[in-house]
Amino acid sequence: MPHIDLQNELPGIRGLMAFRPDTAAPLSALAEILLRDTNGLSPAERELIATYVSYRNDCFYCHNSHGEIACYYLNGNRDIVDLVRTDYAHAPISDKLKALLQVAGKVQQSGKAVTADDIENAKQAGATDRDIHDTVLIAAAFCMYNRYVDGLAAVTPLDMDSYPVRAKQVAENGYGAHIYSKDQPVVK
Amino acid sequence: MPHIDLQNELPGIRGLMAFRPDTAAPLSALAEILLRDTNGLSPAERELIATYVSYRNDCFYCHNSHGEIACYYLNGNRDIVDLVRTDYAHAPISDKLKALLQVAGKVQQSGKAVTADDIENAKQAGATDRDIHDTVLIAAAFCMYNRYVDGLAAVTPLDMDSYPVRAKQVAENGYGAHIYSKDQPVVK
Repeated sequence: MPHIDLQNELPGIRGLMAFRPDTAAPLSALAEILLRDTNGLSPAERELIATYVSYRNDCFYCHNSHGEIACYYLNGNRDIVDLVRTDYAHAPISDKLKALLQVAGKVQQSGKAVTADDIENAKQAGATDRDIHDTVLIAAAFCMYNRYVDGLAAVTPLDMDSYPVRAKQVAENGYGAHIYSKDQPVVK
Repeated sequence: MPHIDLQNELPGIRGLMAFRPDTAAPLSALAEILLRDTNGLSPAERELIATYVSYRNDCFYCHNSHGEIACYYLNGNRDIVDLVRTDYAHAPISDKLKALLQVAGKVQQSGKAVTADDIENAKQAGATDRDIHDTVLIAAAFCMYNRYVDGLAAVTPLDMDSYPVRAKQVAENGYGAHIYSKDQPVVK
């Protein structure tokens, strides 16, 4: 049960966003830009970074939500998503993405944990300054979203069938603030 | 020196925001709402929460920037700001703010670290659901901003006289995205 009376029963961050729509607007705008931009990193790569950081932060709602969105973009290849969570070094992903996940893992610990060697490694693997910027900001942003969701004990759906349904909606329609409206039917 | 070529010499998060203005817009809109809203928590209380979390995250740029803004709102009372950083239990602040700083400190560790007792303690001290929501989101957001700044090794001004100058600008004009323009004179 959430720590505060959200006056709605929407799951996860959606319940928090409906409680305070004026903070929901920039939060969803940030997700839209960071996770759906097709310049540089692909949306699938962006969602994998978000999933990895959320998993490391032990945020069940977020790592399952974003894992399913990544899975949707990857045509249902859940094995890649599962390996990125727990053992990305052995996942069938590019060396560039592995190097960026290393950076993201450092950011999850602390901004100061990122070393010049981590960055050089990513550059050697083909990451641009923009890729590195976006990786650091995605990782940092999920250190926010995860804490927002768990810090207020948002409702976490335990029916795992609900996550792919929601993932398809987000992958096809985006993270626009309108989808957090109280009037939107709750996906169970 | 920043980990990537920002193509500008602006200090702190401003240099990062000028590098990628489309993510800067929601980041600054979020700061504007969370830190300058006058409903419930005052702007001074909001900046103290931001300062405390940034100090715990060891983000020199952020805890000094927001500490100076808090100091501006507190008519120059730097003692309060310094005590909130290191020993808020003995700071001359309300019991409500102390209870909310306890919640913020938990969020800084992990969303899951927040307990029902932490929340009940804040409610008993007079915190509303909205105050608790805003505290959790401010603390979570600074876990993002701090990691963004340090994860990219943003330029950190070491001239401490520059922080009050900048603080006055922000306190009087806000966190609008326009202030992150490359064309804005750099405050040294």
